[in-house]
Amino acid sequence: MHTSTALLTDHYELTMVDAALKAGTANRNSVFELFARRLSGARRYGVVAGTGRLLEAIADFRFGDAELEFLRANSVVGQDTIDWLANYRFTGDIWGYPEGEVFFPGSPLVTVEASFAEGVILETLALSIMNYDSAVATAASRMVYAASGKPLAEMGSRRTGERSAVAAARAAYVAGFSATSNLEAGRSYGIPTMGTAAHSFTLLHDSEREAFAAQVAAFGPDTTLLVDTYDTEQGVRTAVEVAGTGLGAVRIDSGDLPVVVVEVRELLDSLGATNTRITVTNDLDEHTVAALAASPVDSFGVGTSVVVGSGSPTMGMVYKLVAREDDNGEWVSVAKKSADKASVGGRKSVRRLLNARGAARAELIYLGDGPGGEAEGAEVADSSREILEPLVVGGEIQQQYVGSDGIELARKRHRSSVAELPRVAMSLTRGDPAIPTEYR
Amino acid sequence: MHTSTALLTDHYELTMVDAALKAGTANRNSVFELFARRLSGARRYGVVAGTGRLLEAIADFRFGDAELEFLRANSVVGQDTIDWLANYRFTGDIWGYPEGEVFFPGSPLVTVEASFAEGVILETLALSIMNYDSAVATAASRMVYAASGKPLAEMGSRRTGERSAVAAARAAYVAGFSATSNLEAGRSYGIPTMGTAAHSFTLLHDSEREAFAAQVAAFGPDTTLLVDTYDTEQGVRTAVEVAGTGLGAVRIDSGDLPVVVVEVRELLDSLGATNTRITVTNDLDEHTVAALAASPVDSFGVGTSVVVGSGSPTMGMVYKLVAREDDNGEWVSVAKKSADKASVGGRKSVRRLLNARGAARAELIYLGDGPGGEAEGAEVADSSREILEPLVVGGEIQQQYVGSDGIELARKRHRSSVAELPRVAMSLTRGDPAIPTEYR
Repeated sequence: MHTSTALLTDHYELTMVDAALKAGTANRNSVFELFARRLSGARRYGVVAGTGRLLEAIADFRFGDAELEFLRANSVVGQDTIDWLANYRFTGDIWGYPEGEVFFPGSPLVTVEASFAEGVILETLALSIMNYDSAVATAASRMVYAASGKPLAEMGSRRTGERSAVAAARAAYVAGFSATSNLEAGRSYGIPTMGTAAHSFTLLHDSEREAFAAQVAAFGPDTTLLVDTYDTEQGVRTAVEVAGTGLGAVRIDSGDLPVVVVEVRELLDSLGATNTRITVTNDLDEHTVAALAASPVDSFGVGTSVVVGSGSPTMGMVYKLVAREDDNGEWVSVAKKSADKASVGGRKSVRRLLNARGAARAELIYLGDGPGGEAEGAEVADSSREILEPLVVGGEIQQQYVGSDGIELARKRHRSSVAELPRVAMSLTRGDPAIPTEYR
Repeated sequence: MHTSTALLTDHYELTMVDAALKAGTANRNSVFELFARRLSGARRYGVVAGTGRLLEAIADFRFGDAELEFLRANSVVGQDTIDWLANYRFTGDIWGYPEGEVFFPGSPLVTVEASFAEGVILETLALSIMNYDSAVATAASRMVYAASGKPLAEMGSRRTGERSAVAAARAAYVAGFSATSNLEAGRSYGIPTMGTAAHSFTLLHDSEREAFAAQVAAFGPDTTLLVDTYDTEQGVRTAVEVAGTGLGAVRIDSGDLPVVVVEVRELLDSLGATNTRITVTNDLDEHTVAALAASPVDSFGVGTSVVVGSGSPTMGMVYKLVAREDDNGEWVSVAKKSADKASVGGRKSVRRLLNARGAARAELIYLGDGPGGEAEGAEVADSSREILEPLVVGGEIQQQYVGSDGIELARKRHRSSVAELPRVAMSLTRGDPAIPTEYR
């Protein structure tokens, strides 16, 4: 495992740097924009996640001897480009939606202002991180709403790549999950971790009773016993017999949950275990969580569906050159013209328009001098708030956005941004974005 | 980025080790099996991938001071377990389907024979790697068949997590792709990398002609020019004017490809560029590749669909305890009994039954003493071949399965195993597995 992130890059980015250096165009000041043309899965809103990870990855985007030797040995680029890469360090500015913010089609989520060569080689890394993390956060946010205030734990590590699993735990937490099963996410990002027992622990022992007794002996009665290995009703009875009515919780991982949960609650109550909680974990997604919200479930464990974006495993974001200087230092807006993949050129700033009650009404994208530029001094709706924030200034990563602090900030931002959305945003059906994107 | 893989683990695995150590059951000899209950997406066959990566990850599965300090500070386990983990090293045996082999529901893809504690803590890591890599390889294998011998390049890094992207490139290569855009996959695994230019390179320059001239000046006429930034027909004309009829290739990334490709071929031929190749890259999957197989396309670049498993981003594999010794050293077959998640207990061996023409007819799973045991001496079909191979023997990883050599071996194995499948296996429609799984 190499810690440099510099080769998490598509071959053609370096080829382009190579050709641009030879052509003398590599240093043209440029603006790249990362955005989604539409919301995957016809969701009502997207959730920005991964921004903090991207900033950390940019700090590690350095070509050391090992990276340069690979490029040389495989003739990926010429010697002049090797020399240029050896000194690579991002020195530009990055503006963006703060992590946790909601977004809509066309929202400029990350705006990179740098020379062409400095900006173009971040394309794949930026997209990999933002596409995956945002897909997870977007799915997770709907699940949090569906759970009506009951806590959710992310437990899907086994159903996505082993390093993506850590990113997924982080993204779900940004979107409002309470904890994760993934220990590396606990170490790397300070996210609370949780977990108790698996079916294999019950099967290891000569009886379910012996397994429960072993677990209670180890952790005390305030533990979570997994009761569905053989027969759920008998499992609940045995659990209470072994742990007493002070049993912390039971976990159910199979069966028709809306029915089973009611039966288990009644059984626990009849046995006197009225404070024993029920946690469920059987291939849940936002729809099954919503169907259980009124059941006597105390907490949810969500696995596969959250780490694969619940049907939309990528957000489909792209990274496009939208403006660059010409030989005279004049800015030129640029955009691909193809009918099915056209995009809007030019530097942009963004405000979210709010109604009198503070609810979001529209995403206003101002074409002009870009964030921090003149657009803000121009026509601005009376009640609106500015969205873009400076994430990197002159190559300096703004530290409030990275590490554990950045995650807590993102989590808070997500709560306040979702609260601002109109009710239609919370619909789990496919449909149009909750608010329109308007270009000004 | 931590290089130890030990915390790429669910919290509950360590909790189980903790409780089992306290109960005196942690050292019971156990057999764990990794398998899929069904083929995701109703595919006709699955493709095993990730095995070599799993073996490499097991070699790095060591708890160093940093890992132990995290577990201690967060009270994940007690001190006795901390001490046990400090000395952890996998000393058991692992049998498995060799990487690249095809598989079916119930196939025991990885069989881990070790003490309970040694085996149980590999659960999440093994599933993360095998579920993701096999999902990619399974999708990729169908695309390779659909392409009818024309080469495919994997270009999806931007649409999956940045480290999963490297794994995806490797898995697609195992399944028969020719190259990847991902440079880290080139460095880590020796997979051929490729790439030329993006739309941003064209937009950087004052005209398409200047961009093409810059690229040809840098790389010579035997390069691939991207011709669809403004207008594809004009792009092709300009490309040939700039590079001459010796132009290597044109890439088309938008439009109705079956129509556009024919038009571009005719245009290239009319301009005298009869040897200029056409490569296409517009959100392809196995279905659109199949639809283009008879078109004058020379090669395909596949992005999103292959890295997200073309609709099935995980294989849904599980890792279950299937047998363990009791206090008397007697083996006991075990299995969860729940109606919707039942599994088949016991150690297993596997043979693939072949008909007289050498075509696969059934996957025979023998319940008995497991791989290398008595089952092979028992009833064995006349024409069949043994599937399971010893991947780890007494803790020693068998080196032919890892690194670049392992990948080449897997690629070869995949070709021969697919060739053995009945024709129905190549159907792109949803349906039953190509051959039945039979328990003996």
